[in-house]
Amino acid sequence: MISDKDAPIGIFDSGIGGLTVARAIGYTLPNESLIYLGDTARVPYGTKSAETILRYSMECADFLVQKRVKAVVVACNTASAYALCDLQKKFKIPVIGVIEPGARAAARASKMKSVGVIGTWGTISSNAYGKALTSIDEEISVISKACPLFVSLAEEGWTDNEVARAAAERYLAGFKSESIDVLILACTHYPLLKDVIAGCMGDNVMLVDSAETTANSLEDLLREKGLVSSGPGSREIYVTDLPAKFETMAKRFLGPIPSCVTRVDL
Amino acid sequence: MISDKDAPIGIFDSGIGGLTVARAIGYTLPNESLIYLGDTARVPYGTKSAETILRYSMECADFLVQKRVKAVVVACNTASAYALCDLQKKFKIPVIGVIEPGARAAARASKMKSVGVIGTWGTISSNAYGKALTSIDEEISVISKACPLFVSLAEEGWTDNEVARAAAERYLAGFKSESIDVLILACTHYPLLKDVIAGCMGDNVMLVDSAETTANSLEDLLREKGLVSSGPGSREIYVTDLPAKFETMAKRFLGPIPSCVTRVDL
Repeated sequence: MISDKDAPIGIFDSGIGGLTVARAIGYTLPNESLIYLGDTARVPYGTKSAETILRYSMECADFLVQKRVKAVVVACNTASAYALCDLQKKFKIPVIGVIEPGARAAARASKMKSVGVIGTWGTISSNAYGKALTSIDEEISVISKACPLFVSLAEEGWTDNEVARAAAERYLAGFKSESIDVLILACTHYPLLKDVIAGCMGDNVMLVDSAETTANSLEDLLREKGLVSSGPGSREIYVTDLPAKFETMAKRFLGPIPSCVTRVDL
Repeated sequence: MISDKDAPIGIFDSGIGGLTVARAIGYTLPNESLIYLGDTARVPYGTKSAETILRYSMECADFLVQKRVKAVVVACNTASAYALCDLQKKFKIPVIGVIEPGARAAARASKMKSVGVIGTWGTISSNAYGKALTSIDEEISVISKACPLFVSLAEEGWTDNEVARAAAERYLAGFKSESIDVLILACTHYPLLKDVIAGCMGDNVMLVDSAETTANSLEDLLREKGLVSSGPGSREIYVTDLPAKFETMAKRFLGPIPSCVTRVDL
């Protein structure tokens, strides 16, 4: 595999949530060509076993590497938690996840050194954010909670109604008695519920999502490796399933999507 | 394939919801051996395309047929909606779904000939219940609504709290202005939310779920074909993924589960 600065960047996610990361990368690095793969035929990963998440992630990365990408972004928290190390071992091109950038942003932002983390069941039980945060600063205390319903709420478009508020109150009640000042939205679906989560946590808690910080990390990496493209950038979206509702849902994450979405088998 | 009355009955579902159907079959036909397959590595089916649902359903049925079952029960509403006809064409052994039995029970129960249907997005957009109901009695009017959040609520165990009630109020509001007297719970997860749904719809609306009526249909079929076993019955559970939370979730659907759950690849 020859590294080529005009080669595309590969981005994959279990579904469409990673489009928020793709959007941030497209905004930060507009000259780069992006290939996005959403494993919509097997979404979600967050409820599945470590073994299955690893297998699916390998298949996604293989697909992108065959497209001759110059770097892979694992735009899924669950896949980052369980597969990043193995992906980095397997491939010669750079592979980055969303956890390290998110943890760094949170560690920087927390004055009280007390950070909350919410995510899928898989991400939370991996404790990947806890490990990343304490490896940055061992004085940081971490409290975490799986909020699986937030994914369905985001996909249903119920991002600011009484059901979303009741779910947020119930999930986040435990954080209120803790003195956290930063809450990591450790699932790419959760930024859609930002208003409800912020309303529940109050003004003293800063919300961190990984999309923008991952885009910045990617930019640093490309510069460091001399891999920045001078453009023009193109966009391709691949999905493993293309349900009738795909466009409606994708728009919630990406805004108007390009007409060219291709279904592929892994 | 030789039909053998002591051969097991194969039951499959996209995940664990079909365990409610397996439980009803085990209760109605205690002498039968049951082999249950939950496609937990690719759950849910209800948000995926017709093509993908059909492919996955074929793979599930193939697995069961290789286990020499004498009949297959498609214990998933979405798979029944999209794959039943093709499965019946492909295999020589009897294949039954959950839609026909559920529709028959609802048609019998509705004095006002006005039936509501709630299910996954896939099941509702297929209009499989609408077709089944009007083929039984063309005077029946059908009003239907996809309630995707009910699946996550059931899996989270939030079956009787303020989040479940708020979601039910929002989803079911449209039914209240219609004069339905029967509501079909057209997803195997929904019976777990029976109390909340009943509380929302009131005493004048009867809830129908397919588990028991499917078990009765299966019993009729086995008698008709001379395939009733004299026992003793055994139970086997196979899943395509075995996440750490499997046992907790399965207990919600089946009660205490047998210790022997085997993971398989399809």
